[in-house]
Amino acid sequence: MHSAKHLQNLEPSYIREILSAATHSETISLAGGLPASDHFPLPLLHGALETLTTTPTLFQYGETRGYGPLLECITKHYSLLSSQSAMVCNGSQQALDLIARAYINPGDTVVMEAPSYLGALQVFALSQAQVKTIPQGSQGPDLQALETLFQSCAVKFFYAVPDFHNPTGLCWSLDCRLAVARLCRQYNVSLIEDAPYRQLRFSGDALPLVSSMCPERAFILYSFSKIVAPGLRLGLLVAPSAWLATPEKIKQASDLHCNQPLQAVLLALLNSPELEVHIEGVCALYRQRFEALAASLRRHFGDQARFSEVQGGMFSWFYLPEHRQGCEPMALAREALNKGVAVVPGDVFYRADDPLRHTSAAALRLNFSHSEPGQIDCAIARLKCAFDKLGA
Amino acid sequence: MHSAKHLQNLEPSYIREILSAATHSETISLAGGLPASDHFPLPLLHGALETLTTTPTLFQYGETRGYGPLLECITKHYSLLSSQSAMVCNGSQQALDLIARAYINPGDTVVMEAPSYLGALQVFALSQAQVKTIPQGSQGPDLQALETLFQSCAVKFFYAVPDFHNPTGLCWSLDCRLAVARLCRQYNVSLIEDAPYRQLRFSGDALPLVSSMCPERAFILYSFSKIVAPGLRLGLLVAPSAWLATPEKIKQASDLHCNQPLQAVLLALLNSPELEVHIEGVCALYRQRFEALAASLRRHFGDQARFSEVQGGMFSWFYLPEHRQGCEPMALAREALNKGVAVVPGDVFYRADDPLRHTSAAALRLNFSHSEPGQIDCAIARLKCAFDKLGA
Repeated sequence: MHSAKHLQNLEPSYIREILSAATHSETISLAGGLPASDHFPLPLLHGALETLTTTPTLFQYGETRGYGPLLECITKHYSLLSSQSAMVCNGSQQALDLIARAYINPGDTVVMEAPSYLGALQVFALSQAQVKTIPQGSQGPDLQALETLFQSCAVKFFYAVPDFHNPTGLCWSLDCRLAVARLCRQYNVSLIEDAPYRQLRFSGDALPLVSSMCPERAFILYSFSKIVAPGLRLGLLVAPSAWLATPEKIKQASDLHCNQPLQAVLLALLNSPELEVHIEGVCALYRQRFEALAASLRRHFGDQARFSEVQGGMFSWFYLPEHRQGCEPMALAREALNKGVAVVPGDVFYRADDPLRHTSAAALRLNFSHSEPGQIDCAIARLKCAFDKLGA
Repeated sequence: MHSAKHLQNLEPSYIREILSAATHSETISLAGGLPASDHFPLPLLHGALETLTTTPTLFQYGETRGYGPLLECITKHYSLLSSQSAMVCNGSQQALDLIARAYINPGDTVVMEAPSYLGALQVFALSQAQVKTIPQGSQGPDLQALETLFQSCAVKFFYAVPDFHNPTGLCWSLDCRLAVARLCRQYNVSLIEDAPYRQLRFSGDALPLVSSMCPERAFILYSFSKIVAPGLRLGLLVAPSAWLATPEKIKQASDLHCNQPLQAVLLALLNSPELEVHIEGVCALYRQRFEALAASLRRHFGDQARFSEVQGGMFSWFYLPEHRQGCEPMALAREALNKGVAVVPGDVFYRADDPLRHTSAAALRLNFSHSEPGQIDCAIARLKCAFDKLGA
């Protein structure tokens, strides 16, 4: 049977392929986007799991919008405005898919930074949006390029990951946030602020959500995958209340609602004073792991070590030396796999036909959240071997 | 913000509205499609829930296709052919949505029986399929009408609920199953067999799946909502292996994968010898409740009591007397709500523009799984009051 016409060019996820190669061997993976498996707050989840069966209504059909007591708690926990509402989704990935299904007509323009989060590229490809990209600088997106795009055509959405971007790890400055909110208002563009890594800040000061400066035209995606555990598949879609009606109808048709027992477990965790301590622990751990990565890169690559000095999140972006022309990211990632380390070549975070794919600096995405310092150092040593082999 | 163009006529679910009205009062609801809340197998789930946190990998990201050990178990439990594979979905509702997103181009023809499962009508509306309907007789779909449709245009899918249909409760005969499988093969039509109620048989002999007679061109949707608990939101998509590749890519983009802890809990339950005993208990309970409904209908409506004598499932279809012209199903359902009983008027199980909506007998859908016999009798007495008032 033939797939629907607009899907016939759908590319498989290169990362998934690398991840599956990485599980076959002694490979150390800096490729995935996995949180540290040995630091899930399992002791904090245990009590709630144990008592679930005392509440049979959790096992019955529930509301599409989410488990009522959890929604109430979220309203306080995330300080929602009275004009905003939330819907519980199967991870923030589903929240993005629901926005796209609810609002995008084929051919509508969506703007993103490049490089881009692959899961968002996939969602916008499914909805047949026309994706246009702008380059990313050290302080955030290229504002001149953004305004030029906003002026040149009717842009429906600007999708952004302002805190510890995937894949680059960069965090937008306050000035940049103010400017983006102003441009969204001026040009009547709706913002989708994807904030999965926001609570993983381990240095510097927290900056306000961009959406807090233009709440009347912003969707916010929150994830519990990074601060609790991804296996729960729970995230949030927050938006001006009227904007949730169509995504809710689509969620009703597509899976009725999210599982309720794990929503109740999440509620217990959000109500626990120990959650904050847990998140601080995760941040301290990731700081240590990023510092280990940074030290290893400097030790093994010396002057050639140029990478994003991130203040949080799970990724750093390692720029390949510009004069080493033979050393393409894709070739380097393949050779690195031969040497026993999985990394993701920067190219894959661009659409195949994106002109920025070739004009931007060659790079690798390095994950530091999932490996211990010793493994990270071993991985970077192997990467240097691959690098030297290709450069030879 | 305007919804995507094809959604601007999306109708809200009338059943959801009735259900929310029904929760506000002393109303007895025969309107929903809820399994009995007090008979979930909670004691059988408890042990697995309690030990989840001993397996941290369940809380990490997992495979889109589903939790590996669960998929292995399912292959045996549902006797999958070597040519078939399964994917775990957020309920069988998501399985249907994934099929539609993967394979339907706008304007493609999908055939269903009328009256129809509302959740399927919603999914096909989202995918912009052209839905054509055929009438349902006591043995299954009108085969002549089905063949005429298959001959007259390129039909992509025939969507069917052969076991204890929602809303009518009817079960296809063996001859009908054989004939439908033959027609699907002859006319190159893919079958979607939705089997959520199949294991809820309380009388008569089990009949083979229609898809077992044309497995090379059939999707099968299984649900754990009725035999375990709907709050888990777990179901299965089974298909010829090659047909799962595109739905899997769409699931990856739309929510990555289903939550893993509850997949592990389901696995423990499927491996428990007590599950069969539990399902037998649910069937015995539903038999008792259907018999209570049938007795009440005969007691209160006498000669006018004409309804589907079902052998399983959760619904019976109550035909309104043909000569009572003032007594339209929608008006009757509204008056019944005034009298304190919620039922669903048959009209809502047809597309608004379906000619069969007006030519088919007027009816109500009565759910018997969620209420105790005493409540059922009280509900039918109230329904009779509403009926008499409208007929006066």
